Amino acid sequence: MEATSGGSRLIGSRARQAAGHRPRVVIVGAGFGGLAAAKGLRHADVDVTVVDRRNYHLFQPLLYQVATAALSPAQIAMPIRRILSRQSNVTVLMERVEGIDKENRFVQTTNSRIAYDYLVVATGARHAYFGKDEWAETAPGLKTIADATEIRARILSAFERAEAAEDEAERRRFLTFVVVGGGPTGVELAGAIAELARKVIVRDFRRIDPSSARVVLVEAGNIVLPTMPAKLSGEARRHLEMLGVEVSLGEAVTRCDSEGVALAGGRQIRSSCVLWAAGVMASRAAKWLGVPADRAGRVHVDRNLNPPGNDEIFVIGDTAAVTDKNGRTVPGVAPAAKQMGEHAARAILAGLDGRTAGLFGYRDFGNLATIGRNAAVADFRRIRLSGFSAWLVWNIAHLWFLVGFRNRFVVFADWALAYVRYDRAARLITDRYER
Amino acid sequence: MEATSGGSRLIGSRARQAAGHRPRVVIVGAGFGGLAAAKGLRHADVDVTVVDRRNYHLFQPLLYQVATAALSPAQIAMPIRRILSRQSNVTVLMERVEGIDKENRFVQTTNSRIAYDYLVVATGARHAYFGKDEWAETAPGLKTIADATEIRARILSAFERAEAAEDEAERRRFLTFVVVGGGPTGVELAGAIAELARKVIVRDFRRIDPSSARVVLVEAGNIVLPTMPAKLSGEARRHLEMLGVEVSLGEAVTRCDSEGVALAGGRQIRSSCVLWAAGVMASRAAKWLGVPADRAGRVHVDRNLNPPGNDEIFVIGDTAAVTDKNGRTVPGVAPAAKQMGEHAARAILAGLDGRTAGLFGYRDFGNLATIGRNAAVADFRRIRLSGFSAWLVWNIAHLWFLVGFRNRFVVFADWALAYVRYDRAARLITDRYER
Repeated sequence: MEATSGGSRLIGSRARQAAGHRPRVVIVGAGFGGLAAAKGLRHADVDVTVVDRRNYHLFQPLLYQVATAALSPAQIAMPIRRILSRQSNVTVLMERVEGIDKENRFVQTTNSRIAYDYLVVATGARHAYFGKDEWAETAPGLKTIADATEIRARILSAFERAEAAEDEAERRRFLTFVVVGGGPTGVELAGAIAELARKVIVRDFRRIDPSSARVVLVEAGNIVLPTMPAKLSGEARRHLEMLGVEVSLGEAVTRCDSEGVALAGGRQIRSSCVLWAAGVMASRAAKWLGVPADRAGRVHVDRNLNPPGNDEIFVIGDTAAVTDKNGRTVPGVAPAAKQMGEHAARAILAGLDGRTAGLFGYRDFGNLATIGRNAAVADFRRIRLSGFSAWLVWNIAHLWFLVGFRNRFVVFADWALAYVRYDRAARLITDRYER
Repeated sequence: MEATSGGSRLIGSRARQAAGHRPRVVIVGAGFGGLAAAKGLRHADVDVTVVDRRNYHLFQPLLYQVATAALSPAQIAMPIRRILSRQSNVTVLMERVEGIDKENRFVQTTNSRIAYDYLVVATGARHAYFGKDEWAETAPGLKTIADATEIRARILSAFERAEAAEDEAERRRFLTFVVVGGGPTGVELAGAIAELARKVIVRDFRRIDPSSARVVLVEAGNIVLPTMPAKLSGEARRHLEMLGVEVSLGEAVTRCDSEGVALAGGRQIRSSCVLWAAGVMASRAAKWLGVPADRAGRVHVDRNLNPPGNDEIFVIGDTAAVTDKNGRTVPGVAPAAKQMGEHAARAILAGLDGRTAGLFGYRDFGNLATIGRNAAVADFRRIRLSGFSAWLVWNIAHLWFLVGFRNRFVVFADWALAYVRYDRAARLITDRYER
């Protein structure tokens, strides 16, 4: 049922009478958390405003496939206002948030002030360089579509420049790819680059052998996928090595520039294409709110997802450091962000009716990471899979959760065709990489 | 049959013995003309080098659909080296050409010199501003994928800014779209924008009514589609007006800035989104070659497509001003470029065998332009169509000529779904338009 104005059975009507106006909920950020919060308020007699500086919701788990030319941006991104089109109590604004005035309860954007009674902050995280921000130019990270098309252009351009290079040492440098960070994104990127070089583009060049490309995954810790059980981490490493990825463990990167990287042990890797998947830093929400944050910039929230003393403000998803009602640390993954968004909506509904909502509890459905086109690792606690079966589960799960029928259908068609033909559909070098 | 080294029956073997090396053909530009030339040499005992500053061949007739969010870039673009992957006598280089040394017969790129025995120049054209280059920033034209995503971002951002605007006059300015130029690109763009506003996004906004958007097509001449028969021009105008496009004829644009445009008659149109489809200027090939060009920068070539006195050089496609062997002026369309590329290949093959090829004759298969999702105009001289039948022909023709099975399949799926659901799949505002 859609909310209609003044419907007496609508949740929030009592609060409306008390406040003298329809309660205003502002949601900043339309990732998994923000969208879930908006959808959770679909039957509420409130005015919801969703503010995002982009016009699209991004299915981030598949972003590495855009970065490695397997999918087009539009296949994993959808306009926010399209997703929320039928929810008549929502207004979507594409604006950049500059700050939050907790005292007077408004969000300051570049162009306007948006007053709120309840505020949901779901602004996510970006990659971080551990204080070495100058590395960003050399080693882009992967969070937005612009990041993904940039990385795609760098990977494809490296092969182009290798084909054109006159000097053998230069050619080697162009054919060496370094991925920093052994978490899911790093593992997925390294696997996809190795596969691109060895399978997809292998016949397209005349002067170079793309399959001779060197792909190095550099992880400072002693295992890849550290949040996985040790056995699956080992399996993931084995699958990566089968694809031809060199896995370098136990040494951090100490230098990163146009020549490549240096590792803590003194080793140098000459490379023209270094990608960053090592660190994450929350958005500036803690600064906007003037509340304490942890080292990764995440706002400390209580078990109702409020920053202490601000019951009308919810901080959710990657922006928040959360311990749930069972004392578990909540990981920075899409399902957790969704659940927090749903919790925020429930808590707001309860507040509007003068009730109190329960505390937030995280349901862990498992953990998945893919390595190339035939292998993945999956941890559902009772069941642990690796190899092809895990890869199938990974595909089904990701297709299932993709927003919107159209995307699901087209992504499936593309995957199926790419699988059969070993092809990559979106091998485009665009924008500033056009020569 | 693929060329194999030294095969005695291969065309060009005699010339190879005479020259002491395998003849080298350099093709600059991998548009319709350049690709056709390369393919025409597939059985020749020559070394072909295709040089392009981009890594992709673009199906330009559908570019306006990327600019209006109906298709993704990868659906109408394909890597050049992928297209030519199986033609073993071709090397593809992604390099920017800086000049041509006719004396010593080499092409100078940013990084290298590429020697040639035969040269095919197929570098196309860009939009031109009739000496008002400062208009380019305000009114982008549509030639590359970067242009198309830029225009897409401008169109979609205008609606976003209208939704956020506080002031009614500003809102009107954001909701006014001006397309300058009544040729096929201008007609297609204006029709697609009107349709986007009136059909696709109409339910996605809360504060504005997208269907109130004003789309003005400004043409300095007295008809739209001037290369079409008068009856079809009139039909096209009628279909545009049915879609809600204001067609302004007989007045040129005299001012173009961030406020909008002014017309020769003194009328002002306030608009935040002006698109340019009015003029075309050939690439710098005439300057590289030091040969005469017409006002649009096109190289004057003889009926063998050589600049006078340079039998080893062919200038084809939009870069050339051509009168064919029957005395007809050859239009700047994709089929003409293809035919010229095929002719250049035949002439090179003949030259290698010491024969002379016939002169170039243009076969005119007809002329098509589409207006929105149900109408088009088609001129096959004997048969003239307008409305839905022309639109069907337009769709079949364009699908048929799209390079590669995959693209054809996916574009068809997207079109079919978009037709049924009145949806646009690629409504993304990316890169510098992210706020």
